[in-house]
Amino acid sequence: MSEELRYTLFGESHGEAIGVVLEHLPAGLVLDWDFIRQEMDRRRARAGGLTTSRIEADQVRVLSGVFEGRTTGTPLAAVIENGNTRSGDYAAARYLARPSHGDYTGFVKYHGFADYRGGGHFSGRLTAPLVFAGALAKLVLREKGILVGGHILQVGPVRDEPFDPVEIPPALLEALRLKDFCTISDEAGQRMQQVIREAGQQLDSVGGMVECAVTGLPAGIGREDADSMEGQIARQLFAVPAVKGVEFGLGFGFAGALGHEANDEFYAENGRIKTRTNHSGGINGGITNGMPVVFRAAMRPTPSIARPQHTVDLRTMENAVLEIRGRHDPCILPRAVPVIESAAALAVLAAMGKLEREETNP
Amino acid sequence: MSEELRYTLFGESHGEAIGVVLEHLPAGLVLDWDFIRQEMDRRRARAGGLTTSRIEADQVRVLSGVFEGRTTGTPLAAVIENGNTRSGDYAAARYLARPSHGDYTGFVKYHGFADYRGGGHFSGRLTAPLVFAGALAKLVLREKGILVGGHILQVGPVRDEPFDPVEIPPALLEALRLKDFCTISDEAGQRMQQVIREAGQQLDSVGGMVECAVTGLPAGIGREDADSMEGQIARQLFAVPAVKGVEFGLGFGFAGALGHEANDEFYAENGRIKTRTNHSGGINGGITNGMPVVFRAAMRPTPSIARPQHTVDLRTMENAVLEIRGRHDPCILPRAVPVIESAAALAVLAAMGKLEREETNP
Amino acid sequence: MSEELRYTLFGESHGEAIGVVLEHLPAGLVLDWDFIRQEMDRRRARAGGLTTSRIEADQVRVLSGVFEGRTTGTPLAAVIENGNTRSGDYAAARYLARPSHGDYTGFVKYHGFADYRGGGHFSGRLTAPLVFAGALAKLVLREKGILVGGHILQVGPVRDEPFDPVEIPPALLEALRLKDFCTISDEAGQRMQQVIREAGQQLDSVGGMVECAVTGLPAGIGREDADSMEGQIARQLFAVPAVKGVEFGLGFGFAGALGHEANDEFYAENGRIKTRTNHSGGINGGITNGMPVVFRAAMRPTPSIARPQHTVDLRTMENAVLEIRGRHDPCILPRAVPVIESAAALAVLAAMGKLEREETNP
Amino acid sequence: MSEELRYTLFGESHGEAIGVVLEHLPAGLVLDWDFIRQEMDRRRARAGGLTTSRIEADQVRVLSGVFEGRTTGTPLAAVIENGNTRSGDYAAARYLARPSHGDYTGFVKYHGFADYRGGGHFSGRLTAPLVFAGALAKLVLREKGILVGGHILQVGPVRDEPFDPVEIPPALLEALRLKDFCTISDEAGQRMQQVIREAGQQLDSVGGMVECAVTGLPAGIGREDADSMEGQIARQLFAVPAVKGVEFGLGFGFAGALGHEANDEFYAENGRIKTRTNHSGGINGGITNGMPVVFRAAMRPTPSIARPQHTVDLRTMENAVLEIRGRHDPCILPRAVPVIESAAALAVLAAMGKLEREETNP
Repeated sequence: MSEELRYTLFGESHGEAIGVVLEHLPAGLVLDWDFIRQEMDRRRARAGGLTTSRIEADQVRVLSGVFEGRTTGTPLAAVIENGNTRSGDYAAARYLARPSHGDYTGFVKYHGFADYRGGGHFSGRLTAPLVFAGALAKLVLREKGILVGGHILQVGPVRDEPFDPVEIPPALLEALRLKDFCTISDEAGQRMQQVIREAGQQLDSVGGMVECAVTGLPAGIGREDADSMEGQIARQLFAVPAVKGVEFGLGFGFAGALGHEANDEFYAENGRIKTRTNHSGGINGGITNGMPVVFRAAMRPTPSIARPQHTVDLRTMENAVLEIRGRHDPCILPRAVPVIESAAALAVLAAMGKLEREETNP
Repeated sequence: MSEELRYTLFGESHGEAIGVVLEHLPAGLVLDWDFIRQEMDRRRARAGGLTTSRIEADQVRVLSGVFEGRTTGTPLAAVIENGNTRSGDYAAARYLARPSHGDYTGFVKYHGFADYRGGGHFSGRLTAPLVFAGALAKLVLREKGILVGGHILQVGPVRDEPFDPVEIPPALLEALRLKDFCTISDEAGQRMQQVIREAGQQLDSVGGMVECAVTGLPAGIGREDADSMEGQIARQLFAVPAVKGVEFGLGFGFAGALGHEANDEFYAENGRIKTRTNHSGGINGGITNGMPVVFRAAMRPTPSIARPQHTVDLRTMENAVLEIRGRHDPCILPRAVPVIESAAALAVLAAMGKLEREETNP
Repeated sequence: MSEELRYTLFGESHGEAIGVVLEHLPAGLVLDWDFIRQEMDRRRARAGGLTTSRIEADQVRVLSGVFEGRTTGTPLAAVIENGNTRSGDYAAARYLARPSHGDYTGFVKYHGFADYRGGGHFSGRLTAPLVFAGALAKLVLREKGILVGGHILQVGPVRDEPFDPVEIPPALLEALRLKDFCTISDEAGQRMQQVIREAGQQLDSVGGMVECAVTGLPAGIGREDADSMEGQIARQLFAVPAVKGVEFGLGFGFAGALGHEANDEFYAENGRIKTRTNHSGGINGGITNGMPVVFRAAMRPTPSIARPQHTVDLRTMENAVLEIRGRHDPCILPRAVPVIESAAALAVLAAMGKLEREETNP
Repeated sequence: MSEELRYTLFGESHGEAIGVVLEHLPAGLVLDWDFIRQEMDRRRARAGGLTTSRIEADQVRVLSGVFEGRTTGTPLAAVIENGNTRSGDYAAARYLARPSHGDYTGFVKYHGFADYRGGGHFSGRLTAPLVFAGALAKLVLREKGILVGGHILQVGPVRDEPFDPVEIPPALLEALRLKDFCTISDEAGQRMQQVIREAGQQLDSVGGMVECAVTGLPAGIGREDADSMEGQIARQLFAVPAVKGVEFGLGFGFAGALGHEANDEFYAENGRIKTRTNHSGGINGGITNGMPVVFRAAMRPTPSIARPQHTVDLRTMENAVLEIRGRHDPCILPRAVPVIESAAALAVLAAMGKLEREETNP
């Protein structure tokens, strides 16, 4: 019944098209297509061995909800046609569940009727419309002075410098957004790329972590219950394939900490309340406190690896060996940052409730 | 519109009463009061320096939704009267926001009208009706052969033995449930208690981590989208005060892992599909795969510590120093395990959708 | 996830207590207990043969969500203990489904575990906490200049004067609110009371209709989809026992009308847009247009009548004859007006979304 | 969080395309395209003066959620490209709100950014994807033996024979479904068509009523609260443009009835419980009782009439006179029956909760 932002992704990796419907966007938002295309590009596969070789144009066609270049406030549907599909790669292994993929669980849940090709609806390809949706959410937030930005904090054994959670300047977030390989330390980025290429050469894959921040959020967003700011962000992040852990502020570091180390003391400055440290990641009691919201998402190594793996034939229930064909990312981190940011932007925008533009047309 | 399980906690720490309303419980469930009381007792404060000295009777009065000892299927309301309150402890510091508590954020969100005494609705005391609700959820799950159980995995620098995620026997979960200090290794438990007592003596507090498992779950529960099994559990866990991180399976350990180490290969045995390892924590593509669901929740040190701390007077907006009075847990881990289990049980039961008893009365 | 108003009724007619939990009320609302008690009294049974002889004190105890006389913004739970129960009246007929009651359908849905006494959770007694919830909603709306008020438009063959939908003055609504038998025309009210007493004397019951208006609503509330203003009000009205029809504006009268008769032409006056007629009942395209929202709810005759009726024994599945004992209203219309108003007030407040008070405390 | 059926319509009358996304359809449903096309045809405009002269091909393109001819269980998106648009008809009157349309209310709600052409998202054209969605819902229900069918009960002063609510044979519903002008009595249908043609010739329009039934529903569907079967159906019906009243069983006829006339006595036959009459329209206490669910929807005359009407210029706030151009139905009843049926089918399917096919593939 609510009018908070809601989105629905649709489509399958090798189906006709993928897309998204966004409900309850504020009316009057100008679609900044330069920004949207940049965001889509940040997620795209590239040449160079860091990503899959399935490169898609990912042209977004908006079917509804936009008039004279602005959102109408009614549902916005956007579609991306599927182009570069090689479904034949998958036919032979139709009933061989890929380990740690959603093949088996999707088979059970959907009684064997799911589209198996390339993971079908479970494919990471669905993150393309997610990034489009996230770009729109970011545009709405940007008008309110709220930025969402992240970087690759870890790939395998290599770590980037973390954010300073007390002060995350807009210029840093924008610089990261425009980087081809999105780390704060270029040197760490170089080493990460090496780790990824090596994993690919070994027919293996490698995991990692994204750190993300939301800055400019006012205090008072979220709730003290199951709709906590942490819970709403985590729920959206866990919808991103490969995310298996989410932490805010010190996160798992709190487990080893003492209270006097972990507390964020308050001070007043120019009539605003701030904290000297930001171990809490900008959230207390499930509600934002005006400091940057900072969180990290752990992402598993791509489960599609070309090495032979043991599995089961879902039709015969016999043990089998699978050699995965198809084209896959040896590491999803290079493409994951805008995806994580998008999930967070959508969660934050939904948590803010109905946002009305002050402007009216005419 | 849905008929999945839903619960609403109500009450304030120093108000008339706290309680819960549960909607869409299956009809016909026998309320096993021995079990329910055990669960409530697991969460209660005790003597001995490990917990707060505010000890409450926590007698649950069921007002509705139970007839002739069984659930009716219509809303079940339960109330716990507040007894041992010392509200005077809080009056002097009414406008001094306790660092890292929800005082300030609640003040902003609720425009200064929230009940400030003892944290009001944000108090950990609300976990008493949560454990009651969780006990009912566990009873429903138990009838389906599904168990939810956990242990204290970490307190400060001390770690317990972890679960073997491939095989978590019911007897282990039941033994843990009945332990006064809930660790697998008694020796680790002893050291944890020492860490907690020391923190208390230093007017400090200490954080920790709970590891929890759900066993006996069939494959096919959850979704591939924002209602993923991970997302639904995480959302409920982040509603528990102090939880700041949630991970499934290897969780943040995935960030440093290679694909061939992290994948869980399938095998068939007696017509059932299993995995040899369970790095995924029982969930692929957001949907259960039939292996134990294993997750960990990181919990911050209790922010209420007796040392002087800097803060701000919310009425005058002036900097101030706060010395917290009131009675507080130096570490919430000793009482947190049934709370985390309850949040998970409620999430899992909701994810299973409408469960009907096969039995009819008469 | 939303923060719009939500309420949950709980309790059974002959159980321990009945009550309601309200979530997402705005913080800072002063509980005007004089108003609340008046509203509760409007719904109460009275002596004089017009209503049931089960007269309850209906003392409301607020357990949570109110501090220093104002709402806190966190869940407000309120309880009414059940007093005047004569459950023995129902034991003999436990398995004999009362025609046109929810006994049989509740038996099927809840597998025979529902509390059968006095209709259990299906009882009209649950409208007591509904009226309490509605009174709070009205208080919130009143601060915005929005009034909700109604009258008995029909009982059996007798009709009251209808509202003039273009102009419904606050004084008329307040006068109706304070009337013991709530009609515009006292003469019609007298005749209705006669019809009701006659039905009671004949061991029969009689149906009727309530007309209700919401005045002062700004234009722009509602949606063009399944959350239309009509749909949201209707959904709440059909939750009231006995409501079997809902219409807005001309309603079923539109079926026989021509377009040029049925359209409401616009005009501008002092910078505001109004319509000369209000056949639309204040709603176009599912969204309020600033004119009074006017609707009618048809209510069936109380199905509990003392005459012998054919039914089935749900245990033996044999045909049987039922003579209903217990105490029943020969017509619910005398008590129904505040119930209908409450359902509408809750629907309207929910549709308005999160309402924040501008005031802050301190 | 629920897995009950949900649909979202998108698109504008003169935009790129209109469509629908359906979530939580059961997996494995065969798309019976003959049936789907028949349903779409029932809603289409035709030659002959009874409907608008804007005739659209309404080719549905399914983008996702169908694989090998069956639903996958993941979101099904379907798109209909807009073809026969004459947007120029609307430009001159962009700011002149059409009386009793959603133009003004949509302008307020969406701050003037809505697509005004042909009513934009508020257009009756959105009922095309609604009928597609409804056809899928009907296919799911048909497999369970549940039929949804209706007829035009009234146009202006002319009434069709009503259903016998106790017994509505499948053959009657199927015959009505295949009729070009959907009445039980052909003679009444002839007279209705005459009334419609006359209204069109007078540059006027005329209202009417649809009667609809759902047969084969088991007892026990719905709830006793705001998610009553009546409430869920009404909420969907009021989402259909022009619906202004909804009643179940005797509906508004209950207002004049006595209890002994209005009650439906039970009897048992072959181990099933039935009622001799069905004044309740198949629903007691908000829950189905196994008898046909019977309801009526009142529909206003098309507000677009070619006669000059008074209105206001939304930009200048000055009074103005509007002569509506564009192509419009003099009466929507000839096309409304499948729309009403679709809304009801979607409501009923959602109320039934998650439906799993017993079949698995392979």
